[in-house]
Amino acid sequence: MAKDMTLLWGSGSVPSWRVMIMLEEKQLQGYNQKLISLQKKEHKTQEVLDINPRGQLPAFKCGKHILNESYAACFFLENQYKSQGTKLIPDSPDAQALMYQRLFEAVPLYQKIVEIVLYNYRVPEGERHDSAVQRNKEGLTAELKLWEGYLNKTDCCLAGKEFTLADVVFFPSATFLFRLGLSSERYPALTKYYNSLKDRPSIKATWPPHWQTSPGSDMLKTI
Amino acid sequence: MAKDMTLLWGSGSVPSWRVMIMLEEKQLQGYNQKLISLQKKEHKTQEVLDINPRGQLPAFKCGKHILNESYAACFFLENQYKSQGTKLIPDSPDAQALMYQRLFEAVPLYQKIVEIVLYNYRVPEGERHDSAVQRNKEGLTAELKLWEGYLNKTDCCLAGKEFTLADVVFFPSATFLFRLGLSSERYPALTKYYNSLKDRPSIKATWPPHWQTSPGSDMLKTI
Repeated sequence: MAKDMTLLWGSGSVPSWRVMIMLEEKQLQGYNQKLISLQKKEHKTQEVLDINPRGQLPAFKCGKHILNESYAACFFLENQYKSQGTKLIPDSPDAQALMYQRLFEAVPLYQKIVEIVLYNYRVPEGERHDSAVQRNKEGLTAELKLWEGYLNKTDCCLAGKEFTLADVVFFPSATFLFRLGLSSERYPALTKYYNSLKDRPSIKATWPPHWQTSPGSDMLKTI
Repeated sequence: MAKDMTLLWGSGSVPSWRVMIMLEEKQLQGYNQKLISLQKKEHKTQEVLDINPRGQLPAFKCGKHILNESYAACFFLENQYKSQGTKLIPDSPDAQALMYQRLFEAVPLYQKIVEIVLYNYRVPEGERHDSAVQRNKEGLTAELKLWEGYLNKTDCCLAGKEFTLADVVFFPSATFLFRLGLSSERYPALTKYYNSLKDRPSIKATWPPHWQTSPGSDMLKTI
């Protein structure tokens, strides 16, 4: 079945990484894949647009089905391959409720990271304000305070002892934060979470290649 | 079971409305509920913060479980009450894939609406630029073009003939667009979609009260 799947992905694209972790967890190795250069703007080429009209990565085709939104791909794969690989939606109502809540709180977290990282890309020079940058950083700081609190109360994973869909989507964001210079000392619970999962096979196998070979930035070191 | 549920909601809050439609579809009427005034900033009161530390609406408690993110509440309710009320996740892989893809594309759509509606609220006066407002409007126009295309290809609902979770989350945004003055003539597929669902019992029963009695704006009339 993996042979019917095609993934166009970007190195360091958090949504791409989510889908790649998901495919590993569901034992769907062997899919067709192509690394698309975000730097060269290859995500705006016809090859990507044919699958993803938004010109974003990932662009993912699963048989005849198109699932470009990373959450959509994750849910679809979990549903279609329920009994294959890791079971990623827990049965117990307690774990399930917590899993869904964290899974969708990961949306505003990622938005807040992106607002900072892409500020200069999205906002033309004449419209930029230091006060806006500062406000975005404060927004992320408040957001991370919530996550420190959540992670302080859990075992290894976001919804308890088991690795779930919430971790599939959240872990790449957590890693991105540290690559952007987030302080391990100021965020001990996030650091502990990161360390407990970074060597998980699905994660190691799909680590963004250029993150392994090139240094990150210190954009978030004051946060 | 509905008696164990408490929903704090705002009139005209799209995420609140999603959860209310969901509760109707799953025949969970009779839950405890309280209308919170967004205008009076009651969503920042302790009553809301006790359930939703983000100080946002909805704040939703389902027994002992907290599900404040509207998508989390929808997924949890669908999973816990699979055989009660409307089945909102289709079984067929075709409909399911389309449903998940549209469900999660509704996230950037709503973000783009909010960027415009809350611009003056979020951006301090000294940082405002007409060019930013214009760019936000162009972003929404491009987004709506995608949705017109999608809706042109479907039957009544987003994933085909059946009403699904994708409609639960998307319909309130569609209605919000028209309340903000979106042109029915320029968006005929969206208008047809709106008309085909606006009298659905779950939707009619939960229509934001102040949208029935007060006029909307013309903020989006040029889009």
